[in-house]
Amino acid sequence: MEARRTSRPVIVGSVPIGGLAPVAVQSMTNTDTRDAAATLAQIARLADAGCEIVRVAIPHADALDAFAGICAASALPVVADIHFDHRLAIEAARGGAAKLRINPGNIGSTEKVDAVIDAAGEAGIPVRIGVNAGSLSERVRDLDLPLPDKLVASAVEFCEHFESRGFSEIVVSAKASSVSSTVAAYRMLAERVPYPLHIGVTEAGTSLSGTVKSSVGLGILLAEGIGDTVRVSLTADPVDEVLVAWEILAALDIRRRGPELISCPTCGRCEVDLIPIAEEVERRLRAVGSPLKVAVMGCVVNGPGEAREADIGVAAGKGVGIIFAKGQPVRKVPEAQIVDALMEEIAALGT
Amino acid sequence: MEARRTSRPVIVGSVPIGGLAPVAVQSMTNTDTRDAAATLAQIARLADAGCEIVRVAIPHADALDAFAGICAASALPVVADIHFDHRLAIEAARGGAAKLRINPGNIGSTEKVDAVIDAAGEAGIPVRIGVNAGSLSERVRDLDLPLPDKLVASAVEFCEHFESRGFSEIVVSAKASSVSSTVAAYRMLAERVPYPLHIGVTEAGTSLSGTVKSSVGLGILLAEGIGDTVRVSLTADPVDEVLVAWEILAALDIRRRGPELISCPTCGRCEVDLIPIAEEVERRLRAVGSPLKVAVMGCVVNGPGEAREADIGVAAGKGVGIIFAKGQPVRKVPEAQIVDALMEEIAALGT
Repeated sequence: MEARRTSRPVIVGSVPIGGLAPVAVQSMTNTDTRDAAATLAQIARLADAGCEIVRVAIPHADALDAFAGICAASALPVVADIHFDHRLAIEAARGGAAKLRINPGNIGSTEKVDAVIDAAGEAGIPVRIGVNAGSLSERVRDLDLPLPDKLVASAVEFCEHFESRGFSEIVVSAKASSVSSTVAAYRMLAERVPYPLHIGVTEAGTSLSGTVKSSVGLGILLAEGIGDTVRVSLTADPVDEVLVAWEILAALDIRRRGPELISCPTCGRCEVDLIPIAEEVERRLRAVGSPLKVAVMGCVVNGPGEAREADIGVAAGKGVGIIFAKGQPVRKVPEAQIVDALMEEIAALGT
Repeated sequence: MEARRTSRPVIVGSVPIGGLAPVAVQSMTNTDTRDAAATLAQIARLADAGCEIVRVAIPHADALDAFAGICAASALPVVADIHFDHRLAIEAARGGAAKLRINPGNIGSTEKVDAVIDAAGEAGIPVRIGVNAGSLSERVRDLDLPLPDKLVASAVEFCEHFESRGFSEIVVSAKASSVSSTVAAYRMLAERVPYPLHIGVTEAGTSLSGTVKSSVGLGILLAEGIGDTVRVSLTADPVDEVLVAWEILAALDIRRRGPELISCPTCGRCEVDLIPIAEEVERRLRAVGSPLKVAVMGCVVNGPGEAREADIGVAAGKGVGIIFAKGQPVRKVPEAQIVDALMEEIAALGT
């Protein structure tokens, strides 16, 4: 794993992005923003799942009143997501947004962009320059360049314009639905701009393909030290985006929220019904906050080895489970008691 | 993406691994091997899902008869997975295995290993030297080295022993349950041995964490050109392992089995109920064999851009969907007809 890229941090509400700050997890509501109660309820679920920054779309002016109420009541910093109409961005900045996200491809004239920059400056909030392959300006789209170069050209051009107005509270993103284009674009951006990078694969698809594409793309970038805040895009409940984002960070030992579960794939050697045991342990571990390593293993090949390396583990076989704690076998229990016994030993650790 | 590492190919049944061969997808049965009918039924399901090589455990001698029958009837080449008892490996080679997988940490004395090598040589089949962090030999486990170095030392030592017997039909793996240890081990192995590499993160966990860990770990390696055959380990139905493996290969444009679905995460801007539409399209696309790009988008921000770039796409809004084919809008349909209309346009492409 490579060292983290250095960047100039910004603050979104109370959450820093960039510099030495932990890589922040974010998501986006998919409720109707005009329905403040539904949107706040979804924000509360996202916060419970570990979301740290939430983005909310403001498609039309009739969402602005609700947006201000959402910002006032939200436990998480709220980012206003604006397209096409710069006046919405200005009103969102005045209404309590902790950050604005605009897209250089579709916000209109330089004068309109400048008005947004000035509004963000007055409100003292950062702006994400959020370039997206699906919404490049016509001028950039027609350049004779590969897609990653177009994304970066668009982002850099906008950064330079912000700097020319004396504004540098910037976060940058440049997303494509192709993993390789996304990775290539962020590698270039990491060299070209000093700002924190918001990373994500856009329109990544449903739970299965979206989880895989996001894990591959963000995994490659994060392993290279690139990325200061992550958004996983799934055509699914946004809570799932947060769970996947945390799993990606945990997979690379960047951040961990709660225990790690090691469990074997089961094979013809497995003598207990391991899949439901592992799933039940996973479910109960969600209530445990500490970063324990828990192993649930179904046979004698790798079972004792993994169970011994974990904080708590079980190596199961022939209808019984041997529970290991801190490397030592401590109990032997029948299959039906494995989950309870594991959880008791975890509780006994006092974590 | 880096160029593929060169390696000396081997043939497993009819499937080449290494060299210029496509990265092969494999999985492992979790039925009781003694139940040949159940194991063959699972192999058929795995083959339907795109599995190209299947591994079967032989825990005890009483599985050998069934194993020979499975090899004879299987549509996929069958790899015999053997631990502890070298006689099982010898009998499996004679019984029709297309490859043996043994583990240097637990097969016993040099004489026993030599007997396995000779049996593989006589049967004309390759052997995978499958090192696993959970089952290192005591001698290697006690070396004062980081885990990845231990894994590689164990694998290289075994390769050299095979070579000293004149046997080089070798595939190598060195798996850990930690993504970073796995990646580090394979990067070293790629430099140290000329053989094809079987890559995987072992004991990766349940569907969610296992999918993410495998996608991150295998994604990093494959993007560096490392990996000739992949096994995703999930504590779940092995068919899911195959689906995830294909999604990883597709995410990096290495191989694709059927269409790619681009779909947006939905947000407060979405005016149709997109999640079930995307899921239904994903389900129906499984019957389409060609590598089409299909976009299912919920609003006017990135929708028309992505739909235009896809072979077939829909940009939905306000209860209707505009269907795009080859970059041009071709139909406008009510929300309830979006899926049918998309599938009709796909059929009309004649692919």
